[in-house]
Amino acid sequence: MTFQERDKKHLWHPLTQHKIHPDTIAITKAKGCILYDENEKEYIDGIASWYTCMYGHCNDYIVNRVHKQMQQLDHVVFTGFTHEPAIKLSEALINLLPRNQEKLFFSDNGSTSVDVAIKMALQYHFNKGEKRRKIIALENGFHGDTFGAMSVSGLSIYNGPFEEFFIDVERIEVPNVKNFESVKRRFIELAKTGTVAAFVYEPLVQGAAAMKMYDSSYLDTLLNIARSNGVITVADEVMTGFGKTGTYFASEHLTNLPDIICMAKSLTGGMTPMAITSCSQVIYEAFLSDELAKGFFHGHTYSANPIACQAALASIELLQTEEIQSNIKRISASHKEFDTRMKNHPKVAETRQLGIIYAMDLDIKMERYGDLRFKLFNFFMEKGVCLRPLGNTIYILAPFVITDKQLNKIYSVIESALETF
Amino acid sequence: MTFQERDKKHLWHPLTQHKIHPDTIAITKAKGCILYDENEKEYIDGIASWYTCMYGHCNDYIVNRVHKQMQQLDHVVFTGFTHEPAIKLSEALINLLPRNQEKLFFSDNGSTSVDVAIKMALQYHFNKGEKRRKIIALENGFHGDTFGAMSVSGLSIYNGPFEEFFIDVERIEVPNVKNFESVKRRFIELAKTGTVAAFVYEPLVQGAAAMKMYDSSYLDTLLNIARSNGVITVADEVMTGFGKTGTYFASEHLTNLPDIICMAKSLTGGMTPMAITSCSQVIYEAFLSDELAKGFFHGHTYSANPIACQAALASIELLQTEEIQSNIKRISASHKEFDTRMKNHPKVAETRQLGIIYAMDLDIKMERYGDLRFKLFNFFMEKGVCLRPLGNTIYILAPFVITDKQLNKIYSVIESALETF
Repeated sequence: MTFQERDKKHLWHPLTQHKIHPDTIAITKAKGCILYDENEKEYIDGIASWYTCMYGHCNDYIVNRVHKQMQQLDHVVFTGFTHEPAIKLSEALINLLPRNQEKLFFSDNGSTSVDVAIKMALQYHFNKGEKRRKIIALENGFHGDTFGAMSVSGLSIYNGPFEEFFIDVERIEVPNVKNFESVKRRFIELAKTGTVAAFVYEPLVQGAAAMKMYDSSYLDTLLNIARSNGVITVADEVMTGFGKTGTYFASEHLTNLPDIICMAKSLTGGMTPMAITSCSQVIYEAFLSDELAKGFFHGHTYSANPIACQAALASIELLQTEEIQSNIKRISASHKEFDTRMKNHPKVAETRQLGIIYAMDLDIKMERYGDLRFKLFNFFMEKGVCLRPLGNTIYILAPFVITDKQLNKIYSVIESALETF
Repeated sequence: MTFQERDKKHLWHPLTQHKIHPDTIAITKAKGCILYDENEKEYIDGIASWYTCMYGHCNDYIVNRVHKQMQQLDHVVFTGFTHEPAIKLSEALINLLPRNQEKLFFSDNGSTSVDVAIKMALQYHFNKGEKRRKIIALENGFHGDTFGAMSVSGLSIYNGPFEEFFIDVERIEVPNVKNFESVKRRFIELAKTGTVAAFVYEPLVQGAAAMKMYDSSYLDTLLNIARSNGVITVADEVMTGFGKTGTYFASEHLTNLPDIICMAKSLTGGMTPMAITSCSQVIYEAFLSDELAKGFFHGHTYSANPIACQAALASIELLQTEEIQSNIKRISASHKEFDTRMKNHPKVAETRQLGIIYAMDLDIKMERYGDLRFKLFNFFMEKGVCLRPLGNTIYILAPFVITDKQLNKIYSVIESALETF
């Protein structure tokens, strides 16, 4: 039996209606930017396996570091204990993060990093004796699938069975040139009620909403209003973090820094799950008390797993190398040049780019999970390129180590798709 | 600077009030059952680093398998794609699980495995057009720290800031010889309302409640009532799974099998975070439809991470060896013998054991996080044994590879604690 056939017996895949989509592609090997399937067909990984393997698959530098770590210290409880990989990672990451970030709290995926951020914000006010229970979030934001994270996600067409259990969220439109004055007015109105605990947002790029981008000046204004009204700001940088927007974090494009930042995905370079919620000293200090109960009683068994910390530390070292930094500039410039051909293409409605993230909306109306999306996916895979369109949006978010030749192949496959569909 | 000092600068530890407990012990190395701190002091890991490293720290068999996997395929999206480690793991695990379990859904920690189970149960009824929104859970149960998992956790003394956002949970007493008739009556009453979606429980041993144990016959009766009233049963085997109770899963001690099982912790042998929520074919089929929205639209980026799957597969292979199986019998027998000395000890109120899990309550009233608890912890660590008392309960849950000599050292350190306190 092939892997594809054996897969069907016991595996329930995420985000999949198995009746309509029974078949999976079995990947047997990956190296650099290339995925190999069970028939030895090669694919360029144009989305870095959901923005994780940014330094290339099975990166030797990371693999060696993780291998050494596995032989030295695999795991230890992180309550009452500590270890070198967590300490070194904390020093490296705080050095990389916006300057107001001081403390790191560990969990295992983007969803839990958001649940942690929400709980931090709610308890911050609770510890100070203020009753603030509402959260402001952006329409079409995506923050994860646990109950807290689902609540703040606006992209929730499939949340029917769960919505009645959601946290109290006020949703605002994503600001643009037309609606900004009214968005701002509503934000002020909400913030001034004194009942808002936090504002949770994906800075500048809404990933799952199909790489939708919005202007930093609008966000800066909202952050400023939040700050002056005691609303904790939570930047979900799970997708945008670690170099993808051209800076280490998307928040660096802004003047107002967030109180809390969520990180996951490429944090560990695609090796193993881990997430971090960082925060400012002000947040942290609200939990210090002689009263035990004012502490943050949240904890996952594998918190700060030494193996994951080592993978993250090695990844951050790579990110800071001249090689990766010049690759980021090269890929950004390459996308920009590609865009000159795309932005006026008759089948393209809109294009957008920030750093190495490039997206184009086709001039076709369709459902998020509609038919054309799957036809496009199959067309790309057929031609040896792994891209996963979201609705009518085609986007590229390739590993930092992609070559010009591989980039050009992605571009040309997209161009031939535009001719075909 | 020592690691202990550097730790304080940027790390926020889970379940810790940092003002009262500013110091951590820095672990630099681990092998087998021994942890080494930065002063090269050795500790026997009497709780297998929260029940994860059951095959011993840095187990060569697991390390080698994971190392090979890291060089072959680190990660790939698990929506639309599959890979050999997930397939082989699914075949091995389904073979190990209670016979009614057919499908595996992946996430990254125990909390998310419970959020997944709750969402599965709620949507199961939703898809069938039934409005069932309540969950039954046991008092003093612990299921995790995300919002869904927190809601079903009865052990929630520090949930003050979050309780108003909890799912609708009916809490029942843990059944015992005195209360069983009234617990049963209440369970029937609730189940018969037709509004209960699921019953979530830790089978036979409530871990975080201090290894509290309850009789399988009571649980079997409740599961039977649940079944006949359309209530989905969810066994949280995050702590109890993979051999610790003397069988592969605690659910095997029962006649009525659960519809859904949550697994994490020792699933990956202490290498890397991963969790699985398994379910019966009946649950799975309620999500198959030509309607996309009836699918389960939950997903984490590192779902079924190949490296974690490989660690889990290697761990399951070890668990099934004669060596580990005979170790489980040896440790169980050893605890039993130790218990003959403990059960009538004047300072011991109660003892209990299931498989390799052994617990004793001291005859002293105290707070869960009270002072004596920390004094006992320090006493044990001083003597080179890592045990973490919960309230007035001392428990042992050591790796399967612990030697008789190491076990005897743990016993004698506990006995000298009884003399001292």
